[in-house]
Order: sequence, then C-alpha cells, then structure tokens
Amino acid sequence: MFFEVTARADAARRGRINTPHGAVETPVFMPVGTQASVKGVPQEVLEELGAQILLGNTYHLYLRPGVETVRRLGGLHRFMSWRRALLTDSGGFQVWSLSQMRKLSEEGIEFRSHLDGSLHSFTPESATAAQIALGADIIMAFDECTEYPADRARARKSMELTVRWAERCKKRLQESMVDGRWSMGKAGALAHEVIGGDSTAIGHRPSTIDDSQALFGIVQGGMYPDLRKECAERLVELDLPGYAIGGLSVGEPRELTRDIVAATLQHLPAGKPRYLMGVGTPEEIVEYAALGVDMMDCVHPTRAARHGLLFTSEGKVNIKGARYAEDEGPLDPNCGCRVCARYSRAYLRHLFAASELLAQVLNTVHNLAYYLDTMGRVRHSIELGGFTSFLSGLRSRSLNSPAHTQREDPTKAPPGRKA
Amino acid sequence: MFFEVTARADAARRGRINTPHGAVETPVFMPVGTQASVKGVPQEVLEELGAQILLGNTYHLYLRPGVETVRRLGGLHRFMSWRRALLTDSGGFQVWSLSQMRKLSEEGIEFRSHLDGSLHSFTPESATAAQIALGADIIMAFDECTEYPADRARARKSMELTVRWAERCKKRLQESMVDGRWSMGKAGALAHEVIGGDSTAIGHRPSTIDDSQALFGIVQGGMYPDLRKECAERLVELDLPGYAIGGLSVGEPRELTRDIVAATLQHLPAGKPRYLMGVGTPEEIVEYAALGVDMMDCVHPTRAARHGLLFTSEGKVNIKGARYAEDEGPLDPNCGCRVCARYSRAYLRHLFAASELLAQVLNTVHNLAYYLDTMGRVRHSIELGGFTSFLSGLRSRSLNSPAHTQREDPTKAPPGRKA
Repeated sequence: MFFEVTARADAARRGRINTPHGAVETPVFMPVGTQASVKGVPQEVLEELGAQILLGNTYHLYLRPGVETVRRLGGLHRFMSWRRALLTDSGGFQVWSLSQMRKLSEEGIEFRSHLDGSLHSFTPESATAAQIALGADIIMAFDECTEYPADRARARKSMELTVRWAERCKKRLQESMVDGRWSMGKAGALAHEVIGGDSTAIGHRPSTIDDSQALFGIVQGGMYPDLRKECAERLVELDLPGYAIGGLSVGEPRELTRDIVAATLQHLPAGKPRYLMGVGTPEEIVEYAALGVDMMDCVHPTRAARHGLLFTSEGKVNIKGARYAEDEGPLDPNCGCRVCARYSRAYLRHLFAASELLAQVLNTVHNLAYYLDTMGRVRHSIELGGFTSFLSGLRSRSLNSPAHTQREDPTKAPPGRKA
Repeated sequence: MFFEVTARADAARRGRINTPHGAVETPVFMPVGTQASVKGVPQEVLEELGAQILLGNTYHLYLRPGVETVRRLGGLHRFMSWRRALLTDSGGFQVWSLSQMRKLSEEGIEFRSHLDGSLHSFTPESATAAQIALGADIIMAFDECTEYPADRARARKSMELTVRWAERCKKRLQESMVDGRWSMGKAGALAHEVIGGDSTAIGHRPSTIDDSQALFGIVQGGMYPDLRKECAERLVELDLPGYAIGGLSVGEPRELTRDIVAATLQHLPAGKPRYLMGVGTPEEIVEYAALGVDMMDCVHPTRAARHGLLFTSEGKVNIKGARYAEDEGPLDPNCGCRVCARYSRAYLRHLFAASELLAQVLNTVHNLAYYLDTMGRVRHSIELGGFTSFLSGLRSRSLNSPAHTQREDPTKAPPGRKA
C-alpha cells in the first residue's frame, strides 16, 4: 500500500491510497459489507455507484462462512466477487459490543457467538491471522474499544492494552511472510504469478510488504485528549502504514466526538491515511473530511435506507410519509442514481408502505449514491480549492432545510460501527 | 390488442400479442408483481431479463396504494415505471382465497381486508372499473374460483355465476368508452395525444377498442370436463379478445390439472390467446405450452427463490445445502444471467445461510432468468419445428437429474396463483 496526498485545503487532504486492488481516492466513504455483502446491493451496482473500497467484518466472517472457507475459496475478494479494494475490521469492536457474552484478559477476548452461543476467543494473533486469510487490502489491529463513559484510570488501562495488542498484531503479520511473500496457502500461491497494483486477478498477493496487506493501528483513549495523544504517539512508533481513530460514536455527544477527532488527528503522521471509524451522517462525513480525515465508514446510509430514511440534496426524506403518496417527482432531483433516474417518490413510498423487498434495495442504492457522491464533491472541492465555500454552503443548506429539521431519524440505533 | 399465430408444432403455438405497450412473444411466462413490484427485482433488471409482460393484482393494489391513487398518477405503467405490457388479475381469486373473510352473493363479494379487517366489496362492475383505472393492457373478468373438491352441482352453480359475471364485466368495460375512447380522467386524457402500439409514452390510451384494454374471460367448471366445455362455449359467445383457464392449482393432483387443461383448450378459439393461470414448475410450463397454452404466470420462481430453491439446467438446487459451501462454480453453467455470470454457488449459499437480503435478490433474478429463458427456448423450438425433441430431451433430463430427484421443494405452498 502506498499513500500520497495530492492537494490540501486547510486541514482537509485530497489523496490516493494505492492498494493491490486499485487506487482509492480520498477522502473516501466505505460502504459496510459486514457479511461480505452490502445489504441488498449487488456488487455490479456498487461498482456503478463508484464504491472504491468496501468493509468486511472479521467477527461475522469468522463465524459464517468461516475464515478457512474464505481462504480456500481464494480470499474475500474472490469469494464475494469484488475486484476493488477491501478493508476488514479486526473483530475487536464487534466482540466488545457483545457485552454480556465476553471475557477480557491480557491474552485476548473470550466470547460467545451471537448466533448459537458457542464459545470462541480472539487474540491479537488470531484476529490478525484471520484477516491474513481473508486477504483484505487493509486490515485492522485488534483493539479494545473503551466504553462510554469511562473514567481516566479505566480509559488509560484500556488504551495501554490496545497498544500492546497492536504490537502483537504487527508481529503476527510480519511472521506470516516468508522471503517477503505471504505464506497462506492457496491465495498465497497466486502471489508468485501475479504482480502489480491494478490487476483484476483475484486472490493475488503482491511481492513486497509495501504492496501487501496493510495493518492499520487504532487509537483509543476514551474522551481524554492527553490519552489519545499518548496512544497515537505510541502507535506511530510502530510505523504502521495507516492509523484509525476508534472508540467514538459509542454514545457520547457529537460535539465531544468532533473534539476528540480534532485532538487526535494532530498527533497522526501527515503522510499516512487517517481513518475515522463508524461515522456518520452526511453532514458529519463532510465535517470530518474538513478536519483532515481520509477514510470513513458507517452503517448509517444502509441501515437508515432500510428504515425508509433517505438523504437528498434537499434534506432528509422519511419516505413512509403520507405527503409522498402522490408525489410524482424523483426522490432527489439532483441525483443521477438509477433510482432517481427512474422511480417516483410515490412509487418508493408505496414499496415501503407495502413492505416490498424492493423498497430496501432501491432505498439503499440511493442512500449509498448520496454518500458516495457527497464524498466525490468533497474531493473535487479540495482539488479546486473551493472546499471552504462548499462547507459553508452545506452548513447553511443543512440549517435551512425544512425536510432536515422537521423530521426525526426513524432508526433506533445511532450511527456507528457495525456491531 | 391483436393476436397472431406465427408457427405451430402439433398443439403448441408460436404467436405474438400486440398490446398498446409493445409486442408479447408467446408462449410467454409472466412474472408476478402483485403489489406493482416483482419482489426484490428492479424494473431495469426485469427488462434485462427479457420480461415482456408483468402481472399485477387488483385486490392488492385496490387496498394499497389504492386504485384512485394509481389512476391519478397516470396508471400502473407510469406508477411503477414499466413501459412494457401489463396484465391485472381481477381480484376474484385473491378475494376467494380469503375464505373466512368473505360473503358471496349474485351481486358480488363482500370481504374484509387482510391488512386491517376493514369491510369492502367487489362486483364485476367495480373490479372492472378498478382495472380500467389501473390501465393494464390485459384485464381479467371477475370470476368465482371454484374450490377443490367441489361436487358437480356446486361446480355448475359456480361456473354459471362466473359466466354471468363475465357478461357484466364486458358491459362495464363497454360503458367506460365514449366515442371509442376511454373516459377515465388523467390517464384517459392522454389517449387523445398518443396513438400507436409501440410507444414508450406511459399512461396513454389508444383510440380504438382493438388497441385498448383487452378483457379476458376466465373458464371455470371445477374438475368436470363437460362443465369446462360449457363454460368455454358460453364465454366464447361473448367474443372476448382472450380466454383464461382458472380454478386450477387449487390442491388437485397434477395429472388432473393437465387433463382439465387439455379438455378445456380444445373448446377455446384458435385465433385468440389462451392463458393458464397460476402454473407452474419449469417442467410444467413447457408441458402446458406443448398443449397449446400461450400465457402463464406463477409465483413459484420468485417465492421458491426466496426460500433458496433454485432452478438450473442441471436440476433443482437447494442453495442452503452444505454441499455448496465451497462450490466455486456458477449456479448454472448454462445460464447467462448476471448472477451466474458473476457469483459462485459458495457465495450464494453463504448469503442465504447468513440471511442476507442480497440472497433473495440474486436468487429471484436467477430463477426468473431460468423461467424466461426456458420459455424463450420453447418459442425457438416451435419456430424451428424441433419442439418435440426439445420436449423429450427435457423429460429425460428431468428424470435423470440427481439434483432434481433427490431434493424436496422447501417451499411450503404449492405453485399457484398469488393469493
């Protein structure tokens, strides 16, 4: 993996992450495909929408279909027929969210499957090995997500464990290489045949560490800026190819999220990608890009879509509303997605009211289009040097939009990392 | 509507139904879009699959979103953004299937909504008016489906009611025309502007009865060939543009279905389309085409898909089977659909096992492709005069396929008209 910054606008950066499965233009929003599928959307439609990189979850894939199954089938790219970049979350957050079903020690976490209650454990080593077998381009360190609220002593203890675990993840990744190549069976065997960053060959492993799976560290430290600083500095010493900010969107007020993001970013190296995990609303992802975040993911667009909450250039639309029953207009007149190009609000409202499967499919396609297009406009604005005016336009529209201010988000869960 | 037979192979016919929304090549399989949506499949994908005509249900659309709403929005074609042909079922069968919630009289049927228990009634006149407002190219007479088993007296009484109701439907349709044009508000207003059978304009009404909505009669008569004959002859006297065979797939043995179909077909006019309602399996739709049926519909491919039962050229595949967990092959090596072109059996099995929404979407797309391609091959075989060898090949494959004979259909409901 190689990262380059190509333009700046104040703190915001326009960049490119070159992965073994193609370039990812940043800032980037990454749709969440927890179980090797972005819920309801075929991969060919994700390509059409311009998705550059998808997220998978090690915890879910470990339980089903199983890491060894994916490895034998040539890795996650090949398994799900996705030729572009992939990132896997380590499973740390997912196991943490099981709360009643886990037991933490220095060694790792014992947990019970949410599917059948069976007993399992993840260690930094096993979570890393699982991600090596899955073969995503970017893999995440196994961390302990600090709960909110947490006092300083608890946050420090948790942060220090996360740092020690990151070291063990890095060590495990290094051990998996033999002569600069991955040693991982079938998928690894392809490494000797296919070299190059933009190949569409699936399951290939590149020949040098710079081109191979990139391990990102995750900064924890609760809501304490000095602990965040210390965590960042200690992880930077590990010289990892990228860094994430974790432990946010866990119930804290949004202003606090923003403060901690800003406080943490300044301690992360400018030359490496910065990934803010599990955010946010369309307004938030623009704000975080303005702060200098390069990568974001969130279940919000896909989950909200399934609940009928749609994002448009004119504000939020709760499509189940009776006001749309005879609205012949497109969902978003400024959107070029296949949904807005063909279907009316009245039809989308009917599909949702009638609990038709197609409602979930079309709603998800549009919301992803909105998020991906938003980030595309952010990238364009940074390139043209107009990001400041883009931001202020967005803020005033967001404040003035009646559609935005008069409606409640019908989804029960707040935006966040996928549990 | 204009029907022409272009080729024959024994009893089988190759034909073309020219509707105000384009030609329908027959024999044709019509995917079921009960609530103005084929479950989980966007209209652009149905186009790609080659669907020529979809089915909608008056009962469901009457309850939700309401017939007046669809009419105000320009008719069903425009509402659901489907430019090709549409057929609506009259609601007779759906109301009949409510069993405990209906009351029958000479006038019509009182029923309670399955959604909220509210009281409604359909008469031949109101069901026809509803279908005029929906604006489908082919509309169905309001019939009484005879239950199975039914003794001869009961079947006769029911059949005679169906004939009287068909007369009333025809009368109601004729009354809706003013100077040879529909009088139906907004959608009707377009009739004066757009003329022509292949227009992509939506909601248009043609200028003559031959080009306008075609009312099909439905032959009832239970499992009594002589009553079927009498019903057919009395409906033929009404000189309707097409005839359907109803009251089958209601629990009777499959051989009996076939016998009644064959016994009825011989009394229907050769120059008009013959529609067998609510069948069947892939093998059955070929058999019925061989008997001379021109149109068929069934929820089987879409419902079975949602239960993980997939039809392939190598037999049935129950995709949840563990045997497919590491099967890298396509679902059907002889299928060119977007699912078979991209995804493995292992991935489809994972999606289904993990209850992913995408499983239902992809499975449905493939099963529809299989049905539509099967009917495409039937048409081609009739044209080339090789339908007999096509049929015998199909029968031997069907008998020899281990995939077919070793597995049970996991769907609980038998193939049938959508209730």
